Amino acid sequence: MSIPHDPREYAALRSWVEVPQGSDFPIQNIPFGIFSTGDRQPRPCTRIGDQVIDLHVLAKAGLLNGIGVDPAALEAPTLNPLMAAGKTGLRHLRGHLIGLFRSDQPFLKERTTTVREALLPVSEVTMHLPVSIGDYTDFYSSREHATNVGIMFRGPENALMPNWLHLPVGYHGRSSSIVVSGTAIQRPMGQMRPDREAPPVFGPSRQLDIELETAFITFQGKPLGQHIGVEEAEDHIFGMVLFNDWSARDIQSWEYVPLGPFLGKNFGSSMSPWVVTLDALEPFRTDGPRQDPEPLPYLRIPGRHSFDIRLEAGLIPKNGTETVICRTNFKYLYWNMAQQLAHHTVNGCNVRAGDVMASGTISGPDPGSYGSLLELTWRGTKPLKLGDGGERRFLEDGDTVVIRGHAERDGLRIGFGEVRGEILPARE
Amino acid sequence: MSIPHDPREYAALRSWVEVPQGSDFPIQNIPFGIFSTGDRQPRPCTRIGDQVIDLHVLAKAGLLNGIGVDPAALEAPTLNPLMAAGKTGLRHLRGHLIGLFRSDQPFLKERTTTVREALLPVSEVTMHLPVSIGDYTDFYSSREHATNVGIMFRGPENALMPNWLHLPVGYHGRSSSIVVSGTAIQRPMGQMRPDREAPPVFGPSRQLDIELETAFITFQGKPLGQHIGVEEAEDHIFGMVLFNDWSARDIQSWEYVPLGPFLGKNFGSSMSPWVVTLDALEPFRTDGPRQDPEPLPYLRIPGRHSFDIRLEAGLIPKNGTETVICRTNFKYLYWNMAQQLAHHTVNGCNVRAGDVMASGTISGPDPGSYGSLLELTWRGTKPLKLGDGGERRFLEDGDTVVIRGHAERDGLRIGFGEVRGEILPARE
Repeated sequence: MSIPHDPREYAALRSWVEVPQGSDFPIQNIPFGIFSTGDRQPRPCTRIGDQVIDLHVLAKAGLLNGIGVDPAALEAPTLNPLMAAGKTGLRHLRGHLIGLFRSDQPFLKERTTTVREALLPVSEVTMHLPVSIGDYTDFYSSREHATNVGIMFRGPENALMPNWLHLPVGYHGRSSSIVVSGTAIQRPMGQMRPDREAPPVFGPSRQLDIELETAFITFQGKPLGQHIGVEEAEDHIFGMVLFNDWSARDIQSWEYVPLGPFLGKNFGSSMSPWVVTLDALEPFRTDGPRQDPEPLPYLRIPGRHSFDIRLEAGLIPKNGTETVICRTNFKYLYWNMAQQLAHHTVNGCNVRAGDVMASGTISGPDPGSYGSLLELTWRGTKPLKLGDGGERRFLEDGDTVVIRGHAERDGLRIGFGEVRGEILPARE
Repeated sequence: MSIPHDPREYAALRSWVEVPQGSDFPIQNIPFGIFSTGDRQPRPCTRIGDQVIDLHVLAKAGLLNGIGVDPAALEAPTLNPLMAAGKTGLRHLRGHLIGLFRSDQPFLKERTTTVREALLPVSEVTMHLPVSIGDYTDFYSSREHATNVGIMFRGPENALMPNWLHLPVGYHGRSSSIVVSGTAIQRPMGQMRPDREAPPVFGPSRQLDIELETAFITFQGKPLGQHIGVEEAEDHIFGMVLFNDWSARDIQSWEYVPLGPFLGKNFGSSMSPWVVTLDALEPFRTDGPRQDPEPLPYLRIPGRHSFDIRLEAGLIPKNGTETVICRTNFKYLYWNMAQQLAHHTVNGCNVRAGDVMASGTISGPDPGSYGSLLELTWRGTKPLKLGDGGERRFLEDGDTVVIRGHAERDGLRIGFGEVRGEILPARE
């Protein structure tokens, strides 16, 4: 059962599974995740509308035969074994699943026992981190974000570092503390130096912030010493998730010279549970910003390699109502994912299935599109007004932050759901 | 079979396995590693003298019963499952192994079939990375190294950054590209800007360097949000290895602002195959440098928490003879491992079994003790003379670097063996 090539015909596909109006998960999405219930151990699933689909149940019923999927991979607690099938294998699986759930293909729908076992309301399952993460890299690819931060810390004349327009700046982060959406984040303790004339002090961070990001997840790349060229890079990318790179600005600003962020970041990062494939995002390709100066040849790639993905962040005070504090778009990023991955491996660095590479804070051109409180409140100098009358310079205990993202064009909407986290008080 | 408490009696222990004069691996060492042969899949071992001891064979013969070791852990391809036994479990195992191989305990020696199967000459086995590494952190804990680099890049008045004496500066590195001793390292390609007035260029690194380091390997720590106090930190450390953090200085100096080293480091790091436990290093405890200003309370720890470990690096040109280019000592490090681990987790960051935390380049007070070519040649301005008449500013293709380390006192020598790597030419 192949996917229609004609864009209108593709966008018009419907599923026999109900998809609520405005859902991020129509039959054209088919994201991958890991779920569990009281009696099902964590294992792979997809989602249509508000129904989670247990892939192991489909395999058991013989519905995934002959497409090269290892049945054992559908009982694993992470997507990593499934990802061994690579871009082509996952493309087959997604196409096959679309075939099973199309409204004009009632074959599976009529097997009511299988359907009853395979489909579960998303409200009745627990979602987990989708992959076992080997290494986590965070890029810094929003020109607006880098410029804003540069102005605040070094003044407007030195805002962008000399290397910034020549390479996608990035650094290694901590994989152990990446958690799935819904996990609460404890305010970190740490060393900081609020008074530059006095010695440093120890205590809970007073400048806890978000970073609105996306991340991509890699397939198994090439052995150490080989590189992934910019033209082939997208073939090594499984899909994308939403990412909140929580940041303690006071800890970070004291510790980060000369080797970069460390404890100001590694107390926790949050990831949305659904990996949306690049194939599902294909209809939303767009140009990124013009790159001037022209990048070196290993970073040059013709064609459209950005995606028009609308992103927003909402802040919900304890027992309060949500205020959307930022609306931005993935397409503002100066460096695209192909360039990020090509740069990362140009020295022979190897990537593994499940590696996570985040975009860096995604800020747009206007102040309402800045992806961090640092920028939104201009380092705390312009407090943000909340809908319920409160204001924020940085996050307070009990605040919940939700980041959402979706692409939409010609009636087709493909989304990520959300990544959500509540701030717990620092430990005693 | 307990280990003698009296230091002289302990140092006098001998094994019925032959230990050559000057060996790093007497019966008091009992390091842990992963070996394979043509017909044995990678699995845990220890070593006495030049004999590798297959722990699975000992378990099969019933010789490791009753000490809480999971037999399945002795057939695993990494030490991680064995490390689930924690500090106490590994301490029991090491003590038990010393009991089996003491010269005054001929019980095992007389079971010649088992001995023939369990003992293999080290020259006939392949050693592997000892652990599956979750996250890799590199500290920057040598005051002399940080000062030297600071002088070169920022001048003597700003050599040490303001935070350096207050916290153990560190950053996250890449775990995917850590390789075991003996693995060749390909010269990385990359972007650099040798002429500050011209645009950046792309090509093979011309400033390939070593960093002489050690690293410690952690046990499973505490859940995210909890911290490991400085007083309990050593209980969470399995042991130590030698570490060469190969560095491309030209790539690094162009890319590293403002987020730290990335492609200048992540093309490869080399680790020695034997994890030497802190218990084996216990007789070599010593004071570290006096810390002034006094660290904040979460970093304060009384007692001796450094170790007197002699370290050296040798350079062997292609078809040439070795020149020892650096002699230094672990005890020069300003921040000790307990402080590093306490700092790393003070914000609630979790560590996992097999995480690697490297010391940073270990430089001592005199120029012959500098742990990198950057310092030894003072950024290439003072070429290093080699024994065979050549000289080096940075590494050339075909150069092999060997780092060795051992502690020695009152006739007892405990060592690490070596970490070795040859530089291969850059890819086409």
